[in-house]
Amino acid sequence: MIRVLLTGFAPFDGASLNPSWEAARLAAAAPLDGFSLTAVELPCVFGDSIAELYRQVARVEPDIVLAVGLASGRTAVSVERVAVNVDDARIPDNAGNQPIDTPVVPGGPAAYFSTLPIKACVEAVRAAGIPAEVSPTAGSYVCNHVFYGLMHLLATERPATRGGFVHMPCAPGQVLDGGLPCLPVPAVAEALRLIAATTATVDTDARLAAGTIH
Amino acid sequence: MIRVLLTGFAPFDGASLNPSWEAARLAAAAPLDGFSLTAVELPCVFGDSIAELYRQVARVEPDIVLAVGLASGRTAVSVERVAVNVDDARIPDNAGNQPIDTPVVPGGPAAYFSTLPIKACVEAVRAAGIPAEVSPTAGSYVCNHVFYGLMHLLATERPATRGGFVHMPCAPGQVLDGGLPCLPVPAVAEALRLIAATTATVDTDARLAAGTIH
Amino acid sequence: MIRVLLTGFAPFDGASLNPSWEAARLAAAAPLDGFSLTAVELPCVFGDSIAELYRQVARVEPDIVLAVGLASGRTAVSVERVAVNVDDARIPDNAGNQPIDTPVVPGGPAAYFSTLPIKACVEAVRAAGIPAEVSPTAGSYVCNHVFYGLMHLLATERPATRGGFVHMPCAPGQVLDGGLPCLPVPAVAEALRLIAATTATVDTDARLAAGTIH
Amino acid sequence: MIRVLLTGFAPFDGASLNPSWEAARLAAAAPLDGFSLTAVELPCVFGDSIAELYRQVARVEPDIVLAVGLASGRTAVSVERVAVNVDDARIPDNAGNQPIDTPVVPGGPAAYFSTLPIKACVEAVRAAGIPAEVSPTAGSYVCNHVFYGLMHLLATERPATRGGFVHMPCAPGQVLDGGLPCLPVPAVAEALRLIAATTATVDTDARLAAGTIH
Repeated sequence: MIRVLLTGFAPFDGASLNPSWEAARLAAAAPLDGFSLTAVELPCVFGDSIAELYRQVARVEPDIVLAVGLASGRTAVSVERVAVNVDDARIPDNAGNQPIDTPVVPGGPAAYFSTLPIKACVEAVRAAGIPAEVSPTAGSYVCNHVFYGLMHLLATERPATRGGFVHMPCAPGQVLDGGLPCLPVPAVAEALRLIAATTATVDTDARLAAGTIH
Repeated sequence: MIRVLLTGFAPFDGASLNPSWEAARLAAAAPLDGFSLTAVELPCVFGDSIAELYRQVARVEPDIVLAVGLASGRTAVSVERVAVNVDDARIPDNAGNQPIDTPVVPGGPAAYFSTLPIKACVEAVRAAGIPAEVSPTAGSYVCNHVFYGLMHLLATERPATRGGFVHMPCAPGQVLDGGLPCLPVPAVAEALRLIAATTATVDTDARLAAGTIH
Repeated sequence: MIRVLLTGFAPFDGASLNPSWEAARLAAAAPLDGFSLTAVELPCVFGDSIAELYRQVARVEPDIVLAVGLASGRTAVSVERVAVNVDDARIPDNAGNQPIDTPVVPGGPAAYFSTLPIKACVEAVRAAGIPAEVSPTAGSYVCNHVFYGLMHLLATERPATRGGFVHMPCAPGQVLDGGLPCLPVPAVAEALRLIAATTATVDTDARLAAGTIH
Repeated sequence: MIRVLLTGFAPFDGASLNPSWEAARLAAAAPLDGFSLTAVELPCVFGDSIAELYRQVARVEPDIVLAVGLASGRTAVSVERVAVNVDDARIPDNAGNQPIDTPVVPGGPAAYFSTLPIKACVEAVRAAGIPAEVSPTAGSYVCNHVFYGLMHLLATERPATRGGFVHMPCAPGQVLDGGLPCLPVPAVAEALRLIAATTATVDTDARLAAGTIH
């Protein structure tokens, strides 16, 4: 049995729901054979989010950790490539914090790469008919914060656990006026299950050009 | 029994499928109670598309005509407001025609408004959880050409038949790399059924601000 | 001496300036040889804007009228093709009016085409190194309102006067954070002078594919 | 006299010019008082570009190095925050190389931060009326490659030299049809001079929220 920890976020910036938590919960409700999926909701707060993530990792002892967040405006399931050691918040978090150019982990390296097989994950999601891409940046808000915190933990304390971050587009119900792209939450949940399954089985990543020119 | 004619387009610009035909066919395969839906595929050719539309209208004798086309890059089901009497093709059609600044109907009025209750239609689609919008332009390619041809026919020969044009986003399978937004084809098919049902029952359109600033 | 009336708009939606007025004023300050350019600022108010336009046309007796407005988010000088007989305001105008689906001119035709040689104008602007395009929609707010009002006046009372509408991108100073595209106001002013000169000299429009697919 | 090395790129992907080289050359042609600016053109080739950069650094012995590249589609002068140790090319470079997921410097750290005062630079450019932003990713093509190579050299061999990467939008002449945003090349050249001057005088970076949510 492969243990997977899935995290979503609480709503932020005045929204009433965050589809990242809906997708994580939905994925966990119907795990693939041979997988145990645990979904937890993280607060959208600098510091507290990482603290809660660390508690859940200690509790679940996962083989794989997938943190999921909302990326309004994106069109596809976005598998993040790299977590950067900086917090730079355009808007305050849910506790009113607005760090500017502070490190996530003082003294930590500038960045960590995801340890998911990101190209194979993208291929697996696309093969299921769901748009997917590699993303070159997770931003500098709470999503990147949690991503960096996760990778730092795994690098320093849990080298056998693979982990990464997945951004998702808005849910249809958030954008009924058509102002932004969307993907159905069940499709994202399916993508998360496929990413977990791919991570459990692929050691050498696929060779797929998925970079950005700039 | 309310008779509805749904038209989609053949693939164009080198594509292997056109989701507007898939959506029209899917909608027709499961009509709402009290509706008879007939789906036909129009060629993506200036002139021939309108000729085929006119043949199908004569055959089906519809109460409502919904023409559907693909609008790559859009995010929502787009109910078009106005058909303009101009063909201006950026790329050749499937027969190699590339008209520039020629009227769809020589001597016809500059434009016709859709006779669908476009705001009520948008509200009905949104109420089903599917993003929808009013669009201020159907372009100047074969979609607008068919739209104008349809409205001219209804205005001059079939005043009791209501008609309009609906643009749809790409299907997920067309944009697996995430380059453009998408909506699932079954969601668009459901939107088409709702637009037909709304048109059959709403006389005075809803009051909904759905214009564009520019 | 060819008389040209250039109109820009007052600021709206809380902005402190409207670059359409800056561009019109700047163009008028340095007319091309043989041209007399008069710039006037129109209120961003349904109804009042057209009333003021009509007063200025009566006063100036222009050979050419170019109305100019701001289109936030556009990248190029946008020569509008068609004015549509509908007001549908997403936000209130400067006087608090928010018409929804009312005609600009009750009983007027659904649309009027610009009587500028729009393709030749686009070619002339591009030849000066300034990005330009034909736009298929002027929206349904005060810009389209003025455009339709202008074309109705010219069609019904001043058939010898040519007129049209030009949308412009934001000025650089409005988008210092890089959130939207911009063009320098002097470049837009130069484009306006070129559009006036082209209109004065071109009878048969250029053959240039500049339509939109949707 | 402060010595500044400015690099631009040769054209790529079939283009006939690369405005990054035009901007670098233009900036160098009119240096600010107290500055000596040397502009060099780098080949758009993985490996060779870094080799040429290293030769020029050895020759010029600069106090500041600003590498500049084109980012089609961006709207503002983009001061890059972080260089990542990965090459992932969507298209071949000018020599036909298309590396996928290979490190820029084998064994190098995952990323280097720019050593420009990026926030103060953005403020200085905006204060001159030119749109500017902090960018969270320089992509994974030759621009990021050169950026990483530069920061690795400075970190390991020239700790007293500050350096970074600036992406610029298209030049107007590249996008005359309005398909993408642009900035005039002289404005970008002015921005480069201001970035050099700011880097020469600012030790502690400005406090400006300029991050991205995702």
